[in-house]
Amino acid sequence: MIKFNSDYMEGAHPRILQRLAEINFDKISGYGLDCYCDMAREKILGACEAPDARVNFLVGGTQTNAIVIDSILRHNEGVVSPATGHICTHEAGAIEACGHKVLPMACKEGKISAQALDRYLNEVTSEECGMEHVVEPRMVYISNPTEYGTIYKYSELCEIREVCNKYELMLYVDGARLGYALAAPDNDVTLPDLARLCDVFYIGGTKVGALFGEAVVILNKDIKMSRGLIKNRGALLAKGWLLGVQFDTLFTDNLYVEIAKNGVDQAMRLRKAIEEKGYPIYLESTTNQQFVVLEDSKAAELAKCVGFNIIEKTDANHSVVRFVTSWATTDEQVDALISCL
Amino acid sequence: MIKFNSDYMEGAHPRILQRLAEINFDKISGYGLDCYCDMAREKILGACEAPDARVNFLVGGTQTNAIVIDSILRHNEGVVSPATGHICTHEAGAIEACGHKVLPMACKEGKISAQALDRYLNEVTSEECGMEHVVEPRMVYISNPTEYGTIYKYSELCEIREVCNKYELMLYVDGARLGYALAAPDNDVTLPDLARLCDVFYIGGTKVGALFGEAVVILNKDIKMSRGLIKNRGALLAKGWLLGVQFDTLFTDNLYVEIAKNGVDQAMRLRKAIEEKGYPIYLESTTNQQFVVLEDSKAAELAKCVGFNIIEKTDANHSVVRFVTSWATTDEQVDALISCL
Amino acid sequence: MIKFNSDYMEGAHPRILQRLAEINFDKISGYGLDCYCDMAREKILGACEAPDARVNFLVGGTQTNAIVIDSILRHNEGVVSPATGHICTHEAGAIEACGHKVLPMACKEGKISAQALDRYLNEVTSEECGMEHVVEPRMVYISNPTEYGTIYKYSELCEIREVCNKYELMLYVDGARLGYALAAPDNDVTLPDLARLCDVFYIGGTKVGALFGEAVVILNKDIKMSRGLIKNRGALLAKGWLLGVQFDTLFTDNLYVEIAKNGVDQAMRLRKAIEEKGYPIYLESTTNQQFVVLEDSKAAELAKCVGFNIIEKTDANHSVVRFVTSWATTDEQVDALISCL
Amino acid sequence: MIKFNSDYMEGAHPRILQRLAEINFDKISGYGLDCYCDMAREKILGACEAPDARVNFLVGGTQTNAIVIDSILRHNEGVVSPATGHICTHEAGAIEACGHKVLPMACKEGKISAQALDRYLNEVTSEECGMEHVVEPRMVYISNPTEYGTIYKYSELCEIREVCNKYELMLYVDGARLGYALAAPDNDVTLPDLARLCDVFYIGGTKVGALFGEAVVILNKDIKMSRGLIKNRGALLAKGWLLGVQFDTLFTDNLYVEIAKNGVDQAMRLRKAIEEKGYPIYLESTTNQQFVVLEDSKAAELAKCVGFNIIEKTDANHSVVRFVTSWATTDEQVDALISCL
Repeated sequence: MIKFNSDYMEGAHPRILQRLAEINFDKISGYGLDCYCDMAREKILGACEAPDARVNFLVGGTQTNAIVIDSILRHNEGVVSPATGHICTHEAGAIEACGHKVLPMACKEGKISAQALDRYLNEVTSEECGMEHVVEPRMVYISNPTEYGTIYKYSELCEIREVCNKYELMLYVDGARLGYALAAPDNDVTLPDLARLCDVFYIGGTKVGALFGEAVVILNKDIKMSRGLIKNRGALLAKGWLLGVQFDTLFTDNLYVEIAKNGVDQAMRLRKAIEEKGYPIYLESTTNQQFVVLEDSKAAELAKCVGFNIIEKTDANHSVVRFVTSWATTDEQVDALISCL
Repeated sequence: MIKFNSDYMEGAHPRILQRLAEINFDKISGYGLDCYCDMAREKILGACEAPDARVNFLVGGTQTNAIVIDSILRHNEGVVSPATGHICTHEAGAIEACGHKVLPMACKEGKISAQALDRYLNEVTSEECGMEHVVEPRMVYISNPTEYGTIYKYSELCEIREVCNKYELMLYVDGARLGYALAAPDNDVTLPDLARLCDVFYIGGTKVGALFGEAVVILNKDIKMSRGLIKNRGALLAKGWLLGVQFDTLFTDNLYVEIAKNGVDQAMRLRKAIEEKGYPIYLESTTNQQFVVLEDSKAAELAKCVGFNIIEKTDANHSVVRFVTSWATTDEQVDALISCL
Repeated sequence: MIKFNSDYMEGAHPRILQRLAEINFDKISGYGLDCYCDMAREKILGACEAPDARVNFLVGGTQTNAIVIDSILRHNEGVVSPATGHICTHEAGAIEACGHKVLPMACKEGKISAQALDRYLNEVTSEECGMEHVVEPRMVYISNPTEYGTIYKYSELCEIREVCNKYELMLYVDGARLGYALAAPDNDVTLPDLARLCDVFYIGGTKVGALFGEAVVILNKDIKMSRGLIKNRGALLAKGWLLGVQFDTLFTDNLYVEIAKNGVDQAMRLRKAIEEKGYPIYLESTTNQQFVVLEDSKAAELAKCVGFNIIEKTDANHSVVRFVTSWATTDEQVDALISCL
Repeated sequence: MIKFNSDYMEGAHPRILQRLAEINFDKISGYGLDCYCDMAREKILGACEAPDARVNFLVGGTQTNAIVIDSILRHNEGVVSPATGHICTHEAGAIEACGHKVLPMACKEGKISAQALDRYLNEVTSEECGMEHVVEPRMVYISNPTEYGTIYKYSELCEIREVCNKYELMLYVDGARLGYALAAPDNDVTLPDLARLCDVFYIGGTKVGALFGEAVVILNKDIKMSRGLIKNRGALLAKGWLLGVQFDTLFTDNLYVEIAKNGVDQAMRLRKAIEEKGYPIYLESTTNQQFVVLEDSKAAELAKCVGFNIIEKTDANHSVVRFVTSWATTDEQVDALISCL
């Protein structure tokens, strides 16, 4: 059975495993106060051209979203998110568990536009009956790539930033799959761009070459994401160097983007085959998630030999299915999938 | 200036003020452990024909919603609400501050139908990628009357109850304006009906004759709304008898519904005048809130002598405005408003 | 049965009831945006000689403590409190329910000294294993009078303020019974002193002449106690003018301190009688709570005709009991108690 | 520099690294729904002789404590803990961040006795002024070994269980270093004993052979520690099999206790040397943490070549220092330390 369910189904890039083995019996200081975290931090800040920024390493994506958002919002403030955003739909209420409301707004293919955001904020903040009754928007959450594999263009991000400035909101980009955006053929957003445009964003490791780990890059000095707050949320890894070693490896010789490129290349190859076979593409994704409309009978047949996810029904007999490649996907795996289609 | 902005703009029914004055210098036990709370509780349970239910008295509506919901949900569980429900829109994130997600569903004129609820729950609970990623619905919140003055028919509530049973959800009815539903000309839902159909509901005092106060009627024995939890939320009034005296008065000689009837009668009179003057009624409300479409210029002129709320724009030149009557609205006040229209 | 259990056992000063009756049918704006709150605010700021401070009116003490503390602390920060402080012992975890740890420190007769506070903070903040593992103290909570009726002298408060400055902590004074401190024969702390020394404090109404209500005076501009946060905690009273009218009345003609003086005078009279009868006074209180050591048999006998609280056992046969007077306590009531002793 | 600061300063047992490398490119289902978690679960339940229990795998200790406690308590309920317990002192308020109060009670060398617990609970629950004002104890937290390396005897645990039964409290044992208790020379508590006596406990991996990971064993069916709640707290590891593989390895051929035995043996050897050199042992620990009283000058000198922690001052010139061994500590490392003493 070949599996295209997700991009977190394999371990880590071999160089990471090798380095972990090498230092296995060294005695290393805990809680992220170690030389590997320092080295990784320096490389990430270098890649972002943001020498004064802060970097915190966390274990997983939901944890990261919850702590970043909690470090910004007070209880009566909320975070605006595309209605299909991960924090809206698939984090089991993790943001709300920290006491904060997620404010969903309409979106398209996972993305929001600056214009729609402006309209939404204008409505919310001009509420007739008084601001104290509504949750005050204080930040905007987007993901890049989105949950639908789409990416933001540089001009789109600049416009969203302007709207955030207008309403004095912070901008946070969830980069759980950021590598695959950076490696996308039509991408024009660099890490330094993100560092200039965002107040905070994270570089996802779990789905791009690490066993686990997300690197939060904090640009805005007003964000209080202290080590104490991370501990308070049960997220300060005792052996923090596990995160440091992984990100240090991924940010050496541009490994992070290099390996992500394989995920994108395999996805493009898969997509070409899908189109050639005449299946309708559900939406234009240039990253490692591909969405296709299949007849339900075809999907059922395919499920016997391939792992994938059914996203939603489009009509009585058809469904959207998702195939996800990763940094570790091989030519053989994609060929096998294509031959089953 | 005559004011129709809201139904919490005056004090209390005079009998309440009189009784408070009479016992002002008695020494009464605190925190709701007094004879007035006991008397009020007994009368309410009598009116509900629910001798085994529990009654807790709280100060305000948002507080009540937050504590009721918090007494039912665990952190990863959520409450389904019409998208225009008070907990979704006008409580400044009070439910989320307790760590719980509100799950908005599409609604019409403030109401949800059993069929739509069934479809919504079916979708949420059949989520492909695993229940642990989504917030698990555990209760349904509706208000009666709704925020748009509409009311549920008995048959509608029975159907909603059945859907709740199917998905093992609790049903909670927010009765901030319950008196005005009970007094509506087309109402066919009684307090004993609510007590049979709901797991918990509340009888609003603040908007129906009391200085402040809401009486929560708890039917389901699994709901852990203890005095300790109320204290924990800062909501255990020291001089709890203030609540007891008010509800004891309101539930003596059917005063609660009697005075609400005035609010409804005045609203019906106002509505008739509006229709006669040819203004389009925005939606069919048979309770004390009336929604009318006015030209913006007309609304601006009216605002010089009458207090009311603008709800939303319908087109470039028109808006929906809301007029609210109450138990204390007089013929003179409504006549004055009519003459300004 | 005469009752000395507490100072929240009667209603309000008659002038308050009279004013509430007078405006009962006026139509007044809700949520504290009314002329009575404005008038009360102005008088309180005048009495505090703090024209630039903010005043928020809340319903009860636990609610007030929770919201004030929540408006200051982030989740990994804590509030230092005397171990017998109300937030430590009698608020059912209301502070923790907002996500904040209360840090108890040893105290004497309800009070902490600047020296002990300095030692405590020095220990906590010099923690060997890293600040991220401990809750970071960010504010100090004290009450005046304390839960044991004792009061802070001006010089003591100045010293505590200096320690707060040294460690960059906010100082918050819980004045649930503040009137009785201001009226104490040995008091040398004025409202303007409190306004100069505290970052925030509250003037308690519930126990000093109001039906309910506490007035929070916020001196430090960094405290984010917005109306939205109050609503978010379910504490924004719909008919906010009920609070405004009460505090406006209490701060007219110095009524607040005048009526508190009766509570203190009656307590002093009671105490003199207790001493004359030879019962040991448990601790030196110059306010409206008096603590006496009684034989258990005597306490049991007394309980047949007088209401009071047993605080703790001192040995196998003796207990500390507490008698509380109030602004409304009469000569006859105290005489009756004395004759039973 | 040889380091005895802590037992989380090295990686994992080599067999774990080897297995992770072997399966690195397999495609494995996420979120703990994989065969390795299943295998580990089965082995742990076998070792505990508790076939009907549940096992959840989490990443770290503070996270585990927070989620276990949150899965049991409602907001107005609290967890009793020794005053030196980890949740009281070194988790940055993680329990309070979930809304729950930790109730510290006096303890000795990290342990509480059943008698003291009984007295404490009797006091708290007989509170004069009403249970709704105090936090209701609902569970007891202890650690084994404690933060001071001491362990509970079987008879002590049985007595504590009885007190818990008397007050209807759940019993939770934090086993962050459980392996070192099981391997202690004077230990008489087995995993099946713990499974019989506790409602829930956890087997620590981070400090005993794993890269990270804690296995929660849930005996009491009323504990609602669902996968949804774990996700809600940001603690559901995407690549859950990383935890499964580690615990499966540790519970194969009794590896967990075997390797812990080395930590204890090295600690005993160190302790013997300390005693022979005449330094006073601070307390009787038979596990991998040893506490010694050193002159401050000696400690300062030692710090030049050995890593360790200073715990507290005993007088002006002496301090308690802590040396921690682990499963990975070598003879050479201990010899080097001894030669420096």
